[in-house]
Amino acid sequence: MILEVAMLHIKPGEEINFETDFAIAGQYISGMKGYAGHSLNKCIEQTNKYMLLVNWENLADHTVGFRESDHYKDWKRLLHHYYHPFPTVEHYECIMENKISDSSD
Amino acid sequence: MILEVAMLHIKPGEEINFETDFAIAGQYISGMKGYAGHSLNKCIEQTNKYMLLVNWENLADHTVGFRESDHYKDWKRLLHHYYHPFPTVEHYECIMENKISDSSD
Repeated sequence: MILEVAMLHIKPGEEINFETDFAIAGQYISGMKGYAGHSLNKCIEQTNKYMLLVNWENLADHTVGFRESDHYKDWKRLLHHYYHPFPTVEHYECIMENKISDSSD
Repeated sequence: MILEVAMLHIKPGEEINFETDFAIAGQYISGMKGYAGHSLNKCIEQTNKYMLLVNWENLADHTVGFRESDHYKDWKRLLHHYYHPFPTVEHYECIMENKISDSSD
C-alpha cells in the first residue's frame, strides 16, 4: 500500500469554494483501479493549507492509472486553479504503525 | 480528533539508526493521555525523508500534555539529533474522509 501526500495551498478567500469542489471531485478518484481511500485534512496553523492523503494499492495506480485517465482531466479542471503555488506530490510507504481503533483514558 | 504531521529530514546515512530508535521511542508517546495511534511513513522520492502522523484526541494533548511531559524529554534525547533541518510540526483536522476497509477491483 502506498500513501500519496499532497500539501495544498489554496488561494486565500477560496477555501470554501475549494472544499465544495473537492467534495464533487471525490467521484473522479474513488472509482479508480487501486484506489483504497482518501481524506482531506485542514491545517490548524495555516487556514488556507490542506493535506490530501490518498491510499493506493501501488505507486503506478496513481502515477500512471489515475494521472493518465480522463478522470484526472476532470479532477484538474475542477481543482487545480485553486492552488498557489502548485503542490508537490510525494508518496510514502508505512514502515511502522500503531492503530488504535477506539480511544480511552 | 487532531492529526499531528511532522515531515522529518534525517541526516543522510542515519536512516537505519533512526528507524531503530524510532521503534524504541514509540513507548514514550503511546501511553500519553489523548494519544490515539501513530504511523511512521518513509518517502519514496527522497530516501532520507519520513512523515510522522500521530492522532490525538485534541490539540492540547500534544502541544501541552506530551511536550511538557518527562516522556517528551526521552523522545527528544532519542530522536532529535537525527533531524536536519529541525522539522516544523503542524496539526490538521479531517474534514472529508472516504475509508475503504478492504480494497477490490
